[in-house]
Amino acid sequence: MLKLNLKKLTQIKAGYIIVFMKAEIIAIGTELLLGDIVNSNASYLSKKLAELGIDVYHHSTVGDNPGRLSSAIKLGLLRSDIVITTGGLGPTVDDVTVSTISKTVGRKLILDITTAKRIKERFRRRHIKLPVNNLRQAYIPQGAVALKNNEGTAPGLFIRLTAEKYLIALPGPPRELAPMFEKEIAGLLKKISGAEYVIKSRFIKITGLPESKVCEKVKDLLKLKPPVTVGIYAKLGEVDLKIMAKAQSQTHAMKAIKPVEKTIHKRLGGYIFGVDNQILEGTVGKILLKNRKTLSIAESCTGGLISSRITDVPGSSKYFKMGLVAYSNQTKEKLLGVPDELLTRYGAVSKEVAIKMARSIRELGGADIGLSTTGIAGPTGATSATRRGGSAKNFGGKTKPVGLVYIALCTGKKTICKKFFFLGDRASIKWQASQAALNLLRVGT
Amino acid sequence: MLKLNLKKLTQIKAGYIIVFMKAEIIAIGTELLLGDIVNSNASYLSKKLAELGIDVYHHSTVGDNPGRLSSAIKLGLLRSDIVITTGGLGPTVDDVTVSTISKTVGRKLILDITTAKRIKERFRRRHIKLPVNNLRQAYIPQGAVALKNNEGTAPGLFIRLTAEKYLIALPGPPRELAPMFEKEIAGLLKKISGAEYVIKSRFIKITGLPESKVCEKVKDLLKLKPPVTVGIYAKLGEVDLKIMAKAQSQTHAMKAIKPVEKTIHKRLGGYIFGVDNQILEGTVGKILLKNRKTLSIAESCTGGLISSRITDVPGSSKYFKMGLVAYSNQTKEKLLGVPDELLTRYGAVSKEVAIKMARSIRELGGADIGLSTTGIAGPTGATSATRRGGSAKNFGGKTKPVGLVYIALCTGKKTICKKFFFLGDRASIKWQASQAALNLLRVGT
Repeated sequence: MLKLNLKKLTQIKAGYIIVFMKAEIIAIGTELLLGDIVNSNASYLSKKLAELGIDVYHHSTVGDNPGRLSSAIKLGLLRSDIVITTGGLGPTVDDVTVSTISKTVGRKLILDITTAKRIKERFRRRHIKLPVNNLRQAYIPQGAVALKNNEGTAPGLFIRLTAEKYLIALPGPPRELAPMFEKEIAGLLKKISGAEYVIKSRFIKITGLPESKVCEKVKDLLKLKPPVTVGIYAKLGEVDLKIMAKAQSQTHAMKAIKPVEKTIHKRLGGYIFGVDNQILEGTVGKILLKNRKTLSIAESCTGGLISSRITDVPGSSKYFKMGLVAYSNQTKEKLLGVPDELLTRYGAVSKEVAIKMARSIRELGGADIGLSTTGIAGPTGATSATRRGGSAKNFGGKTKPVGLVYIALCTGKKTICKKFFFLGDRASIKWQASQAALNLLRVGT
Repeated sequence: MLKLNLKKLTQIKAGYIIVFMKAEIIAIGTELLLGDIVNSNASYLSKKLAELGIDVYHHSTVGDNPGRLSSAIKLGLLRSDIVITTGGLGPTVDDVTVSTISKTVGRKLILDITTAKRIKERFRRRHIKLPVNNLRQAYIPQGAVALKNNEGTAPGLFIRLTAEKYLIALPGPPRELAPMFEKEIAGLLKKISGAEYVIKSRFIKITGLPESKVCEKVKDLLKLKPPVTVGIYAKLGEVDLKIMAKAQSQTHAMKAIKPVEKTIHKRLGGYIFGVDNQILEGTVGKILLKNRKTLSIAESCTGGLISSRITDVPGSSKYFKMGLVAYSNQTKEKLLGVPDELLTRYGAVSKEVAIKMARSIRELGGADIGLSTTGIAGPTGATSATRRGGSAKNFGGKTKPVGLVYIALCTGKKTICKKFFFLGDRASIKWQASQAALNLLRVGT
């Protein structure tokens, strides 16, 4: 009944043939189409399949509707080797996955004795009478393998349709889906796909350079073809390069990644703050620990965000002495000794005030390094940027736009101050300023 | 070239015909298929379309691949009236959306002068030289309307293919997509769809009570059937109740929602801090403004997070005087005058120290209200919780586990101190402590 497309993407390389199996994921549930929940199952499964060396080219989502679900399954089986559905296995009338699969692949439902026993046992242990609906979950399409669910009643389904087409149905709740995939599916898929290779990813994390500039520097690498590819991901105040390698083993994959990583380091060296799961505040912490330096921070426009990020790192109490959120000019004067004259002459958002703040917080906190920020986070700039009702715009004849931020660093030996123009809303400007400040710490200490 | 399906789902109801427009969302990006990011745009757009009375029957995701993207767009235009793509509008070679749309709908690319100007201006404002790649983004398919992007360079696209088929392309980053949808698309779609009903949602936001307790109190409401339903959503340190109504107009929907909202208020009154997009720090800010009170904060375990959240609110400089991150005992002694004796006798994580911190920061900042936190954020507790090498566990004969947090509030007239036990990792404990502290401000001032 199904028209099967047996052609597979093959590639001949270094004398052996790699057969790529293609999978696709169909999420089922009207709550997804209403936007009430996010489809986190699709990303979970995609990540897992990539690790197994199985390519995913399509995700799709349909509601609890037999007609549209059936069409999605048919289309999936035409263009992919493995179709995985998630959701719709519950005991209610809304749950249509099993009956729809049964009709779509032409296999009638039969009672699975083991599943029926497991469901009954589950209710007995909870001292709850078995609801009639739940036994419905023990009926599975003929020839299907029922997958054990340790976290709920619904079994998963594994159906081998032909030697090259597989249909798998998993429950919707992530706490049921993830263990079922790990225990019941991952091993089977590894065998089926006969994947002679694994996929290994390496993220190179960059800050201080806009996406377009990073792109220019690695334009050639972005065009690389498998088995090693490079992708670019822009985040707020950060650009990530992802090197991905397909190889026979983890060791081979790392070997393939290494030269590309080296090239990226050569071209972008100073802008790279970490790899994989490393975070900027973690890198800064390591540098401070290694150099045995302590830190104090005076924040104006970032409002405590830099201190909060620094203290997100376990063990930060070893190098972080104190943070001060000097939001008012009063606090700047009283605690940081910023002279009234400086505030009046240059405005709170100025190089002069930033430098004074960094020097003072270093002393006040008894730290080796003082860091400071002062700027206009928006959306209005007139009130927070200057003193005594003066306007942020045209202060001292110069324009001070929303997004203007000064960041200063004082190490005792040297004092650096940098001027930035950030775009975006209040939260984005705060975040970008915190990235720039942490990066100044990274390169300046 | 495109085969158009003009049939629409119609329904005869109460004597008039409701024409439901169908939309579908195509997300573009290999990073989605690799599981590197979650498709939050699909849920955001689905929610917005539901509010406009437009049904969404399909989501799909394809990689940065012109062939598969083109197929997805063709399929989308066959089965839906409005196709919305997200992503692939960036300046890099990976970004194939515009060129693929151009080929798929047979409209050649032309330079959009306004967009080109806007992009140039954007780089000028950031004092950065315009990279060649970015000007590529000013080319759009003939007849398309370029949608203004205030948060990035890539314009969105709005293409009217026929009187009943629309193709819309939006940028991938949520911070660019959301404002573009609100400002440029929502109004247009409302006109096009001419929907005879709307869906209105109302979120009631609760803190200070666990999900199970909230659930108990509204068990009956959670079983309501359309046209008015209630759902429950648990977040970290927050529980939301969503009331949803389908009605002929916003006014009718609000009328249907009101009595349910009233019932929830009756049962959970004091725990409700806001509705819809209101945030706890915003509510706190409003209360402080209304009561003309100013605030200073001394944070230990929360490390600046509370100050950062308070200053996320525009205009917070009107009531926020200063924040102090007193991470070391040295800072607690020197700046907050916490006596050595108190630290030695009770430990830094104690009711006594929390109260002293709140009183001192109130004075130091010259504020009406002083707030403080001290606790063990983990993963280790021994070092940060006590002084001079003493262990957090069995301090003064009592166990002090990770997650123990004291929060104190001092208004001059009264001083409150509350003790909490939070579960989770370092970031979760910090977040829950900041929620509890803001909530103490909300109810205590």
